[in-house]
Amino acid sequence: MATPAQGLGNGDAEVPETHVLAVASHVTAGYVGNTMATFCMQALGCEVSAIHTVNFSNHTAYKTFKGRKTPPEEIADLYTGLKNARLDDFEMLLSGYCPSAGVISEVGKIGRDAKLRGSTKPGSFFWILDPVMGDNGRIYVAAECVPAYKGLLKDADLILPNQFEAELLSDVKITDFGSLVQAVEKLHTEYTLPHVLITSVRLPPTAASTPKVGEEDNGNGNTGAKLSIVGSTATSEGKPRLFRITVPALPIFFSGTGDMFAALLVARLRQAVQTAGVANKSSWQSPDDVSGPDLPLAKATEMVLASMHAVLKDTEKHYQVVAKGMEGETELNEGTGEEAEREREMGRHLKLTRAAEVRVVRNVGALRSPPDLGRFRAEGVVGE
Amino acid sequence: MATPAQGLGNGDAEVPETHVLAVASHVTAGYVGNTMATFCMQALGCEVSAIHTVNFSNHTAYKTFKGRKTPPEEIADLYTGLKNARLDDFEMLLSGYCPSAGVISEVGKIGRDAKLRGSTKPGSFFWILDPVMGDNGRIYVAAECVPAYKGLLKDADLILPNQFEAELLSDVKITDFGSLVQAVEKLHTEYTLPHVLITSVRLPPTAASTPKVGEEDNGNGNTGAKLSIVGSTATSEGKPRLFRITVPALPIFFSGTGDMFAALLVARLRQAVQTAGVANKSSWQSPDDVSGPDLPLAKATEMVLASMHAVLKDTEKHYQVVAKGMEGETELNEGTGEEAEREREMGRHLKLTRAAEVRVVRNVGALRSPPDLGRFRAEGVVGE
Repeated sequence: MATPAQGLGNGDAEVPETHVLAVASHVTAGYVGNTMATFCMQALGCEVSAIHTVNFSNHTAYKTFKGRKTPPEEIADLYTGLKNARLDDFEMLLSGYCPSAGVISEVGKIGRDAKLRGSTKPGSFFWILDPVMGDNGRIYVAAECVPAYKGLLKDADLILPNQFEAELLSDVKITDFGSLVQAVEKLHTEYTLPHVLITSVRLPPTAASTPKVGEEDNGNGNTGAKLSIVGSTATSEGKPRLFRITVPALPIFFSGTGDMFAALLVARLRQAVQTAGVANKSSWQSPDDVSGPDLPLAKATEMVLASMHAVLKDTEKHYQVVAKGMEGETELNEGTGEEAEREREMGRHLKLTRAAEVRVVRNVGALRSPPDLGRFRAEGVVGE
Repeated sequence: MATPAQGLGNGDAEVPETHVLAVASHVTAGYVGNTMATFCMQALGCEVSAIHTVNFSNHTAYKTFKGRKTPPEEIADLYTGLKNARLDDFEMLLSGYCPSAGVISEVGKIGRDAKLRGSTKPGSFFWILDPVMGDNGRIYVAAECVPAYKGLLKDADLILPNQFEAELLSDVKITDFGSLVQAVEKLHTEYTLPHVLITSVRLPPTAASTPKVGEEDNGNGNTGAKLSIVGSTATSEGKPRLFRITVPALPIFFSGTGDMFAALLVARLRQAVQTAGVANKSSWQSPDDVSGPDLPLAKATEMVLASMHAVLKDTEKHYQVVAKGMEGETELNEGTGEEAEREREMGRHLKLTRAAEVRVVRNVGALRSPPDLGRFRAEGVVGE
């Protein structure tokens, strides 16, 4: 993929025409789930057919929301509608948050049906599964969702767990490189998963990831904290082929970044496998002589991270302006006592949560033409 | 609005940050209703909060679809959720297709509530209402929807009826310029509607709209058929100030073009009133000395039509390729008899309907930077 950023100047032709079925949550205001993912994929030229697993007013980090979870039968009904109208010629499926094991099972039926439809033509269908279950050691879905997701793994092409979700799916506790490799290998072999990408890995630093001179201060006032994204495409023998990209951890929690990552990856992976000439290989698997950092998955991730970094920096700037403005603000609610204080606290919380909504729609340029593309480079994982 | 196309090269800063509440239908596949409108507004940098009045698999012109209409109470619930989370600071409301009079009434409550919220600050809230009822003399909603929409008119700022819907709302049959002006005047005065824009007017040609040399063949093989868009912003005395833009009628029926028009107009009108310095006037009304063709509404419409023309030409090209490819196609269903023929006919219908889906996601550039902006110019209405 030579100088991909250059070609993007030409606009809409860069990402191949791709019909994506996106099954995830929908919120009226803000950017998470399908609300985030649909726009990101469309902005890059993908044709997105979205089925919403919930329809909420806003995401739950606001601590107040209204809306409705979609019953599994309505999801099945919409998919049947697409089939009846012959609108089910999906090249990719991106499945995200499911509110129940019943919905996970329905997504499984859809994924298997779409896979079967594409089975006569290698590479014609690719399923990216984001097994949304929890983070930082805490499960936030029903316990029965874990085995339900495990039941989907053998049919997915790429999964995007965070470190905790990778542990839940592989039953391997990730504490160091050795256990990380073990978890990835288990996912490759036990579930015949061709691609695994673990977002937000926190591992001890290696020589390869030591910052170069001048890069140490990443300019966001957050010099220390780093995250790794670790990906792998299995070799023909099911062995991991790992790469790692280190990114600065931003000091603010932004909801929807996982959905943004997944959505941009849909478009960039399709573009990268086309460039690499493996778009007509089963599950877009690269020949065994391609190293981890040279995988289309690694190249695609580099582009995604460059876009995300630009968008999140702009969002952080906006957030800081709002936060600063709140310091000098006169409180409308001047009551005293616990309840008045609770109300003020909630008001501040709502305002800051909103200020942290990712500014994708104001950064279409950065989505389409990732700036500073050399910033994030995939490297081999030392000790592999 | 000096050389607006130029500024757009700079990207996302052109359309002011605008929080839009969009209430309309949602389809999983294809581009109509909110599925069309949300993307178009977001691509131009608007923050869109979408409430879906239906969730269907696809639009009804396919002649087969599945899904569910949203009950009015769920729409009310989502809006309450937004208010609770203080996400209801809308600068604009775009309301489109409603599946029942109950939903129209709910949209009315939302519009009035949002208007009340903005009532202390002139120009801070603007409601564009697309009264989707029918076309070409045929009503395709329940009869009770007509009075329900009439009940909303006094609170809307701009309505976007087609010629038939303008007749239904004004109770004036539009047969010539005289009756057109009468209909617009009635809408301005009886319902105190500040802005009216009638899409797809078919009126006899006037001297002013005679094609100039070299423009006669518009290059789409459809030299004859023309449509007019006729708009007006009331003067302080409630008199119409009309402008008219003539566009070639495309030979193919594209679903969702009304939604595309409305969505792009949201962004371009907000941009145009800012440029014209009337963004802080009540209902964005221009001083009386501004002529019809110089209205921000006219300038915005010119930009919208330039974008639409480019996107629809690309869609038409794609459609023709598909249609041509079908000519030589071997039929999988080789059965004889009426049923087999019906099935083949349905197959062709589905394929062509899909080929006519508007290619907005492959034409982000044309949405953001309308090409050939001089092509559609607002002119005065002769005989006014």
